[in-house]
Amino acid sequence: MSNTFGTIFRITTFGESHGPALGTVIDGCPSLIPVSENEIQTQLDRRRPGQNKLTTPRKEADKVRIISGIEKGQTTGAPIALLIGNTDTRPADYRRFSSVPRPSHADLTYFIKYGILPSSGGGRASARETVSRVAAGAVAEKLLSVRHGVHIVAWVSSVGQITAPDLIESAPTRALVDKFAVRCPDAKTAKEMTAEIENARNSGDSVGGIVTCLCRGVKAGWGEPVFDKLSAMLAHAMMSIPAAKGFEIGSGFSAARMRGSEHNDLFVKKGKRLGTVTNKSGGMQGGISNGEPIIFRVAFKPTATIAKEQETADFTGKLVKITGKGRHDPCVLPRAVPVVEAMTALVLADAALRHIPTK
Amino acid sequence: MSNTFGTIFRITTFGESHGPALGTVIDGCPSLIPVSENEIQTQLDRRRPGQNKLTTPRKEADKVRIISGIEKGQTTGAPIALLIGNTDTRPADYRRFSSVPRPSHADLTYFIKYGILPSSGGGRASARETVSRVAAGAVAEKLLSVRHGVHIVAWVSSVGQITAPDLIESAPTRALVDKFAVRCPDAKTAKEMTAEIENARNSGDSVGGIVTCLCRGVKAGWGEPVFDKLSAMLAHAMMSIPAAKGFEIGSGFSAARMRGSEHNDLFVKKGKRLGTVTNKSGGMQGGISNGEPIIFRVAFKPTATIAKEQETADFTGKLVKITGKGRHDPCVLPRAVPVVEAMTALVLADAALRHIPTK
Amino acid sequence: MSNTFGTIFRITTFGESHGPALGTVIDGCPSLIPVSENEIQTQLDRRRPGQNKLTTPRKEADKVRIISGIEKGQTTGAPIALLIGNTDTRPADYRRFSSVPRPSHADLTYFIKYGILPSSGGGRASARETVSRVAAGAVAEKLLSVRHGVHIVAWVSSVGQITAPDLIESAPTRALVDKFAVRCPDAKTAKEMTAEIENARNSGDSVGGIVTCLCRGVKAGWGEPVFDKLSAMLAHAMMSIPAAKGFEIGSGFSAARMRGSEHNDLFVKKGKRLGTVTNKSGGMQGGISNGEPIIFRVAFKPTATIAKEQETADFTGKLVKITGKGRHDPCVLPRAVPVVEAMTALVLADAALRHIPTK
Amino acid sequence: MSNTFGTIFRITTFGESHGPALGTVIDGCPSLIPVSENEIQTQLDRRRPGQNKLTTPRKEADKVRIISGIEKGQTTGAPIALLIGNTDTRPADYRRFSSVPRPSHADLTYFIKYGILPSSGGGRASARETVSRVAAGAVAEKLLSVRHGVHIVAWVSSVGQITAPDLIESAPTRALVDKFAVRCPDAKTAKEMTAEIENARNSGDSVGGIVTCLCRGVKAGWGEPVFDKLSAMLAHAMMSIPAAKGFEIGSGFSAARMRGSEHNDLFVKKGKRLGTVTNKSGGMQGGISNGEPIIFRVAFKPTATIAKEQETADFTGKLVKITGKGRHDPCVLPRAVPVVEAMTALVLADAALRHIPTK
Repeated sequence: MSNTFGTIFRITTFGESHGPALGTVIDGCPSLIPVSENEIQTQLDRRRPGQNKLTTPRKEADKVRIISGIEKGQTTGAPIALLIGNTDTRPADYRRFSSVPRPSHADLTYFIKYGILPSSGGGRASARETVSRVAAGAVAEKLLSVRHGVHIVAWVSSVGQITAPDLIESAPTRALVDKFAVRCPDAKTAKEMTAEIENARNSGDSVGGIVTCLCRGVKAGWGEPVFDKLSAMLAHAMMSIPAAKGFEIGSGFSAARMRGSEHNDLFVKKGKRLGTVTNKSGGMQGGISNGEPIIFRVAFKPTATIAKEQETADFTGKLVKITGKGRHDPCVLPRAVPVVEAMTALVLADAALRHIPTK
Repeated sequence: MSNTFGTIFRITTFGESHGPALGTVIDGCPSLIPVSENEIQTQLDRRRPGQNKLTTPRKEADKVRIISGIEKGQTTGAPIALLIGNTDTRPADYRRFSSVPRPSHADLTYFIKYGILPSSGGGRASARETVSRVAAGAVAEKLLSVRHGVHIVAWVSSVGQITAPDLIESAPTRALVDKFAVRCPDAKTAKEMTAEIENARNSGDSVGGIVTCLCRGVKAGWGEPVFDKLSAMLAHAMMSIPAAKGFEIGSGFSAARMRGSEHNDLFVKKGKRLGTVTNKSGGMQGGISNGEPIIFRVAFKPTATIAKEQETADFTGKLVKITGKGRHDPCVLPRAVPVVEAMTALVLADAALRHIPTK
Repeated sequence: MSNTFGTIFRITTFGESHGPALGTVIDGCPSLIPVSENEIQTQLDRRRPGQNKLTTPRKEADKVRIISGIEKGQTTGAPIALLIGNTDTRPADYRRFSSVPRPSHADLTYFIKYGILPSSGGGRASARETVSRVAAGAVAEKLLSVRHGVHIVAWVSSVGQITAPDLIESAPTRALVDKFAVRCPDAKTAKEMTAEIENARNSGDSVGGIVTCLCRGVKAGWGEPVFDKLSAMLAHAMMSIPAAKGFEIGSGFSAARMRGSEHNDLFVKKGKRLGTVTNKSGGMQGGISNGEPIIFRVAFKPTATIAKEQETADFTGKLVKITGKGRHDPCVLPRAVPVVEAMTALVLADAALRHIPTK
Repeated sequence: MSNTFGTIFRITTFGESHGPALGTVIDGCPSLIPVSENEIQTQLDRRRPGQNKLTTPRKEADKVRIISGIEKGQTTGAPIALLIGNTDTRPADYRRFSSVPRPSHADLTYFIKYGILPSSGGGRASARETVSRVAAGAVAEKLLSVRHGVHIVAWVSSVGQITAPDLIESAPTRALVDKFAVRCPDAKTAKEMTAEIENARNSGDSVGGIVTCLCRGVKAGWGEPVFDKLSAMLAHAMMSIPAAKGFEIGSGFSAARMRGSEHNDLFVKKGKRLGTVTNKSGGMQGGISNGEPIIFRVAFKPTATIAKEQETADFTGKLVKITGKGRHDPCVLPRAVPVVEAMTALVLADAALRHIPTK
């Protein structure tokens, strides 16, 4: 396994869905950054299960405990260890699956790779693992905000067949995003998305979607070509999130259908700096931030656990019929929002520290 | 900059578009793998400029020279250094751009980050950089083929408005792909794509597209969750290729519109192993290969250099009119095919070496 | 800071001397290795303060708690998080030093680097940090023992002016080493060393010494030239231990005085393998293990905290007189033994996993 | 193998003793650092074989060629590739050893690890590999000198039984060191050392020794605890040099015999900063530089190749008599001096770039 992410601002995460606790160690965070448990908790609460009717009924307080690296409200330069206890574990829900690998889950591949059937839930493959990412991301975000004035906001831009209008220009706030349980900051679309999710759940099914992320305030110059371009690091980070199936930056897949004359971002003076008239590039050129907003999208598949009956092979190859147990979201999108924000913050904090200014 | 990629099978690349040579050092390749200069040359020839009328007229022999690490036709375990000389450099073509950052190129971001205007071409931001990737990829591919029976093939599945039918099932060979200059192994589509590219060039323009990649023979168990999932490493690798704008695996962005009951890959016995009936997952679950073919797509933007006049700001902010000089492909897709294959081979070779089998 | 060590078998440690807990996350440990809390505890108990009259009177149970990565007594392949709580913290002891950097401690350099005066004790610079290393080392040792038959044993070979005879040939066991509080497995020398330490303490002073380490059962072939030679990795590991001042392997510094004809280890058949008649090389050639026992020595300085009055500058530069408070060992050597063993195990476990066998 | 060293300022070296060329790629060097081929050549010339009667008669011009990363006399931020051709190769000298592993060489361990008998010389185990280190070190040194005012000088402080007086206080220059072929800047000792070496050679033997290194101008704050302490990184770097057997910093092994009251470095005001009265710590506390000169020593074994007859086993285990062929130095010390300086520069340049200043 590889549970460390980042080069200078580096996180190492641990913990399983149904063990005593999950957590993260952040190494390489500069000292003297003000961070409180409350600030970390705020993002954890946004990811927390059971926060509304669209999410799993599993109840977890997800209270974070700072074990090291933060003293008197500021970072000390030492590794920051954060611990989040599990409380509402129900390993029994998963017992019956021990003989059947759940379709589109990682039960089979984990068994092949590690020789072990996790006694409960998906072990490290459970989306509960992302709680560690969100806790670490909150610290990264604080660094980015205090030192660099960066603002990151993500929202659900698509659920199943429902797609929100382009909201980039309106630069929605997190407060606005959170006004809607589905985390789409467009009232009309939010309503339709909610219906789409409820409809899926009511038919014992689940549904996929897309998260859009917007980062403002990133100065020009971040990103390390040729292999650790900002686009490549964001893609790496996003595609490591459970259920992610696709990543695109700026114009993304639509660029494939364009001509150069439509796609090129022409330069124009914006105050003291050179900016671009359009932003097909999504905030970077050559993998280095250019001072324009960074924009990307992440596609998520529908939740693999569904109540509908499925016919699938057990570990011996015999076909059996299963129906999903366990407590799961019919749509991961609303809770994926803080996870996307966290991974973005981790990439940007690392990029900020890796960048060596000239002179 | 960060010019090293990989954890165990690691490459470090160097060289600029208009300097004396480019090259790569491969560290961590096991010993006793048979590799010849010819095998490396074969892939370089597929990436070589000037190979047909669809590509830049720049002439480069791109002859590879093995400097170290291979003796008597096999690897020794020592670092493998490969050198590819530049011959047809024309820095003069680029001189006039020194006062104007080319739109959707990296001139401005490199200047901001490194304080330097490359005297010629795009320096490390030039697509010529990919010659090092292809050379290294050929060695990785040999390792994958000899030790693991892995086969990688990529092709152009979309150019501008033209999209090829789904060719996954037909598993085209490289020989078939290469029968068409545009590298789409479907005769009818290839003809239309060629027309689309010529049309773009004739109007002083360029056009984008999509490469599809298929990997067969990858055993179950490769990939290192939670951060270095195979999907995440492939995304990282692909999005580091110049002009890449999007990445999707298996069902990709279309998963966002699906229900779980359509998307789940049900298990079924296939010979001695458990396989899946469908392959929406694209060959992996939880970021670990599952024994099914690995399938992904990469979107590329249209070439930024176009002959059409563009109005854009110079470094001082003054609006000027420019028309593209230099020798460039009107569509990067055909030559992107071996680059995608190379980066795929590098990811898979590293994954193979990182995987620790049980017992 | 950099609190991660290792390439494949990687540990990340955290925690301060006077915070709530210390710990470690082990990432990259293969699955199915049997490990129990008891086995980890055994080594922690050997490092534990207050275990006898030669060590600091600070009382810490140092009970380890497994948070993740071990289920039903064996590793799962997931990151292994281990937590060790602090109980007997006395930050008040250190309060008065906040205005005076303690001589030969890291108070000043930490203040310069991180802008912070640790509220208590040495923060990450405290030797208490090594508890995380010992916990992680116990897991590494289990892997080495179960999979490779490696045995590591270290002992105190020198304290101040007292030096033990060469005990390599006798290959002492840990049980024998532990029969003596001073951890020198030669009864006569142990008695003299004990007197030397008590003498130092009685005069309000402290004393340095040397640990010798012997590793048997390491197969030929481990170590990654040219930069991660086994000798280089051991040196890195040992010199990262608090108070370490020197490292030598095999003949070490005495090699500098020798002729080649005395120093060369001639080959001779040993069973089925080629061995060497002598072992000046200390178990490796060219940084790769050769199948002979690995032997090295680590020099430690005398504890910096002493009861004797010292005249030194405070942070403003004013000369003041200080006498040591806090609870410290008059000689770190006996408790350094399990720390040296742990770091050795971490280096060897990583080397074992990094080694790619031919074919 | 692992041929990359460094975290931000990272080098990757390649090439064998008897192949076409050796070289290095430096990745992570900041842009706008002035470097010329001449500056790199100067240090290569100090390492060059055949420079005087104390060294091997092998003749190598060791002319460096800059392949990339330096334009118009300054770094561009791109990877710097340096190539040094081999000219005077004599693989025939080594042919006869193919059946006998040379004692205290790496022939056997390389064969076991890589399954290959290098056709000539020691392959990557040859000391010729260090030419890449010296070339890279020259660039690192330029960075340290231009940006940080750091000065590194090493000299031979001991050869066999001959030991120079302590020359730290006199801070010898490289020019003074180079006045003596043996590179000991004390005329009387240099003469004795020269006699010791000639005496060894005349009796068909070789002799070991010690290099002392002094770094002035290193600001307080460099080094990354707890694992990448400056002392640990220097130890790693030095012990990776061929023939190195021991490393000690500041008081080193002599600290083991001292009391705390003799060993502690008391603080005192030095201009605007706090310095220490003595420097037993060797320029760092807690692994972080403290502004005092950094001082360490590296022990080297006598050259393994000797003309004297040795009885040793061949690969089949049969005892045979061999006498050394090939061209080798009777004492590696004089030529080890620039290698020690280079590795020191690499460690310090990386430490400078890794250090994150507060605010």
